[in-house]
Amino acid sequence: MKRTWKGLHLMKPPPETEDLPPRLLGLVGQGVDAIETPSLVVDADALGRNIQRMAEFAVRHRVKLRPHAKMHKSVEIARLQMQAGAVGICVQKISEAEIMASGGLNDIFISNEVIAPSKLLRVAALAYQLQQRGGRLAIAVDSHEGIESLAHAMRMTNAAIDVLVEIDVGQGRCGASDAPEALQLVLELVRGPSQLRFAGLHAYHGGAQHLRTPDERRAAIAQAAVRVRAVRELLAEAEIEVPLVTGAGTGSFSLEAASGAWDELQPGSYLFMDASYARNHQDNTQPRFEHALFVKSQVISVAPDRVVVDAGHKSHAIDSGMPLVHAQAGQAPMNYTDAGDEHGILRLGMSGSLPRLGATTWLIPGHCDPTVNLHDVMIFVRGGLQDGRVESIIRVDARGAVN
Amino acid sequence: MKRTWKGLHLMKPPPETEDLPPRLLGLVGQGVDAIETPSLVVDADALGRNIQRMAEFAVRHRVKLRPHAKMHKSVEIARLQMQAGAVGICVQKISEAEIMASGGLNDIFISNEVIAPSKLLRVAALAYQLQQRGGRLAIAVDSHEGIESLAHAMRMTNAAIDVLVEIDVGQGRCGASDAPEALQLVLELVRGPSQLRFAGLHAYHGGAQHLRTPDERRAAIAQAAVRVRAVRELLAEAEIEVPLVTGAGTGSFSLEAASGAWDELQPGSYLFMDASYARNHQDNTQPRFEHALFVKSQVISVAPDRVVVDAGHKSHAIDSGMPLVHAQAGQAPMNYTDAGDEHGILRLGMSGSLPRLGATTWLIPGHCDPTVNLHDVMIFVRGGLQDGRVESIIRVDARGAVN
Repeated sequence: MKRTWKGLHLMKPPPETEDLPPRLLGLVGQGVDAIETPSLVVDADALGRNIQRMAEFAVRHRVKLRPHAKMHKSVEIARLQMQAGAVGICVQKISEAEIMASGGLNDIFISNEVIAPSKLLRVAALAYQLQQRGGRLAIAVDSHEGIESLAHAMRMTNAAIDVLVEIDVGQGRCGASDAPEALQLVLELVRGPSQLRFAGLHAYHGGAQHLRTPDERRAAIAQAAVRVRAVRELLAEAEIEVPLVTGAGTGSFSLEAASGAWDELQPGSYLFMDASYARNHQDNTQPRFEHALFVKSQVISVAPDRVVVDAGHKSHAIDSGMPLVHAQAGQAPMNYTDAGDEHGILRLGMSGSLPRLGATTWLIPGHCDPTVNLHDVMIFVRGGLQDGRVESIIRVDARGAVN
Repeated sequence: MKRTWKGLHLMKPPPETEDLPPRLLGLVGQGVDAIETPSLVVDADALGRNIQRMAEFAVRHRVKLRPHAKMHKSVEIARLQMQAGAVGICVQKISEAEIMASGGLNDIFISNEVIAPSKLLRVAALAYQLQQRGGRLAIAVDSHEGIESLAHAMRMTNAAIDVLVEIDVGQGRCGASDAPEALQLVLELVRGPSQLRFAGLHAYHGGAQHLRTPDERRAAIAQAAVRVRAVRELLAEAEIEVPLVTGAGTGSFSLEAASGAWDELQPGSYLFMDASYARNHQDNTQPRFEHALFVKSQVISVAPDRVVVDAGHKSHAIDSGMPLVHAQAGQAPMNYTDAGDEHGILRLGMSGSLPRLGATTWLIPGHCDPTVNLHDVMIFVRGGLQDGRVESIIRVDARGAVN
């Protein structure tokens, strides 16, 4: 039953950018000043270091790295992660999987339940397509009906699909709620049609990522590991080997790795980081990741006690809190207050003077995933936010791909 | 100095939909069941009634109606509003204005400050373009520098632009903070180059829209009206007539209309409504608007105490609170809890039974504007959410147009 998940060759050159609006294409090579506000800007140097640090961590701790593409939704960034040694990518939706596959990604895990028969037919078609070109598709299940419907859809092809049983390791969202329920699902897979290959356990604790203290996160992941081991042991009693346990996110992955209970890590946000992760108290078990994602914004109105910038929650997601105002040389620390879809209000933290009308301000979004999902492109800058130049315009290929 | 703002003829047929993905185009004519989840669905019957009710209100109260297109970002919906008697539309960004103009809208007010010289050149170009075809562009200002930069940019054309001085009527965001400051800006316009035509006051109180009780809203708008009148009186002393006062939103527009201080209303959300507006206690001064915007979602995981649906905050915006679960025949009332970008958890409100795996649930988004902005299209349904059919696929033309 053992399967090796391996990184597969990419099939296509980077996506063409010729159909980008001329205003965007014309930016390439220009200085940061030329970027219109608000825009989503990536510090490409910091991004490169983040990719490298996570790749090195995975090698050092002998875990596989399968980064979550739901965060960046970009074929080109997924390629960078593959080049740095990722074994494949995760996505949340069949539409994301389709887009990533059409961009040349060959090893894709839909780390979520898909139930609609219409979508399962798309899953089957994509499994076939990836298998034809030497790749593979994997998917999570957490119900008898889910397995049955998947098996039904797969009958339209002769392809196989890797199936991971999701177990609830403390988040209280999807997943088998205990070891006996997980065993039941695994038995269905093992005894069922050979097109559905039992490929392991999906054990992700989303809530643990944003527990603020290292102690809280350690306790949550220790508890999650207990649940993983309970399932493994029950399966061992039934003489079923678990080929892989996959899970973990940016807030906790070093704990999952250290536990020995996980074989593969799925972090996404480490690429860019955000204000919510910045609020986590760090411990020394993780590499240090840098903020690489910014919203360039501009002061469009001034008053004695505040300035108003042109970036509101149509430019950055505030579900996990407000953005941070990135400290720039010569600027006093400021706090961002929500002022609607298109506006944010900045006030001085302590002393200092407010920026003038027209000044540039850089925001670190509260939550990277849904912020990226608001934008059609990311503007990659090399050489820093102050004096850098635009290196490229990267599409958010799967922007809005929710179904 | 008096100018009439009038609705102008639309220039183009409805946007072509031939380049929509076949999966979407194929939906037209099908039953609601065929809509993949999560998708943004509009009850076209309810929408039509909402448009009609607001149009009738404006006629009855002798105010102009200039709905805010930042909410729907759709050329086709703006056309429907024009057909029902709107005098033009509002937008927040030059990019939105460009898109609406290219869709045939001719009378556009950018109800926001634009400061970047690069964007002001686009403003000037659009003012020229609209004037050439018999339309007009208007824009808000709240600073001396803003007026100076606009005048500078307009010199590249021989076109005129209507300029409204924004005054802060209680929101504490943009706008001249008092009457003398407003007078100063108006004088600059009146004495300045003739390309910049003083066209009135922009007086919008965003915060008042979501005050929950009618008394709170009445107090806020009464206070706003005091500020409007103070500016009007100071201008009258300087022998400057105010051609127009424009403002108001869905939560308060009947109060602005009743005050006599406003000539034009800018509501947007009345088209669709949302869970936040549903939390407002209604008074009898406003027409009743119906929920017309829904996220169709599906149960993808079940547990004894909850079900998980496939719509999280990449499908609907939660900046103004969680969505409501739309009560369907035979379904018990349920509450939505945030469970991440791609998931929501539903629990029973009181008694009853949870929906089964695969069941459809309809969510009423917490906040309509940023929810629409997450989606490339809206699926218009005629005949109700239960038994209706897909009538058309409407593009969110200005989705992501933030700069």
